[in-house]
Amino acid sequence: MGRWEPHSRRRLEEAALALYARDGFEKTTAAQIAERAGLTERTFFRHFGDKREVLFSNEGAVRELLVTAVRNAPEAHAPRDAIAAGLQAVGGELQPRREAQRRRAALIAAHPELQERELIKQASWSAALADTLQARGVAEPAARLTAKVAIAIVRVAFERWIDEANDRDLPHLIAEALDQIELFASRE
Amino acid sequence: MGRWEPHSRRRLEEAALALYARDGFEKTTAAQIAERAGLTERTFFRHFGDKREVLFSNEGAVRELLVTAVRNAPEAHAPRDAIAAGLQAVGGELQPRREAQRRRAALIAAHPELQERELIKQASWSAALADTLQARGVAEPAARLTAKVAIAIVRVAFERWIDEANDRDLPHLIAEALDQIELFASRE
Repeated sequence: MGRWEPHSRRRLEEAALALYARDGFEKTTAAQIAERAGLTERTFFRHFGDKREVLFSNEGAVRELLVTAVRNAPEAHAPRDAIAAGLQAVGGELQPRREAQRRRAALIAAHPELQERELIKQASWSAALADTLQARGVAEPAARLTAKVAIAIVRVAFERWIDEANDRDLPHLIAEALDQIELFASRE
Repeated sequence: MGRWEPHSRRRLEEAALALYARDGFEKTTAAQIAERAGLTERTFFRHFGDKREVLFSNEGAVRELLVTAVRNAPEAHAPRDAIAAGLQAVGGELQPRREAQRRRAALIAAHPELQERELIKQASWSAALADTLQARGVAEPAARLTAKVAIAIVRVAFERWIDEANDRDLPHLIAEALDQIELFASRE
């Protein structure tokens, strides 16, 4: 990236979201996004594979936050508590961005090809988390199962968080979902 | 469907799997599948939207089996036990088809567009299960979370079941995964 375009990635993301909201996701082209950001189409494709990818720009960073927190949880922590630390790291990161996340979620909900991509993202987080749990000494298949449950927890909490009728914080909703797994496990 | 093609759907499925295995998924066309099955391309498209759909032919039937078993579980059953009944219904249905499921899973693993479709299938099962749990009186978001955990359980059990190194039954592996959720929930 040249020195003359230090914020090009961020500018492209903002331009894309503005155009998706105004003209619709289908009608917006990479060229239009680049133009609005004052950049070339070539620069767009240096940052993103296609216009779908712009919406998944921070996927890798959030996944890294999640697995790092799980990896660094005290060795004595049970898997459940290491997972809680990871999910709360994600919750704290996303919390200040509720409005942007709401807009993004509405866009995804309206487009099956974006929903597919969102499911792939979740599967990728789950796989990375399973590897991290294994490195912490959790055996298979418990590691894979625990990772999938963790993604279910953060997903359900996230869906409640972006619900307009809800004004509670994501970290709180994550803690609540974690507790509900305990309810599920009990046979009453 | 005319009387002269009573098993056309099944014949198309068998022809598709044989061609995918022999020529690869990409290279096989709907016309070739129809020809091998001794049917017309038009008949193919009467049964399937595209060649990807052939691999997800029994998606609706298995989902129905799952939700029916959960719906019909004794009212006094805790969500966990109603879920167990549903997952075991799926396990019993798939168990006799291990070899076919192994071939199908290998094909899916090799093609990202099939993996996307598989994730969509899982999301659809999860949504149907959440509705069924709600109808049983499980509140949201517990219903959605429990449904996602249930899909995680059957998925992890399924992956172990199709592993060549494994010769245990799917129902047994499902029961084991259910027990591992209890381990996850405990704080040790």
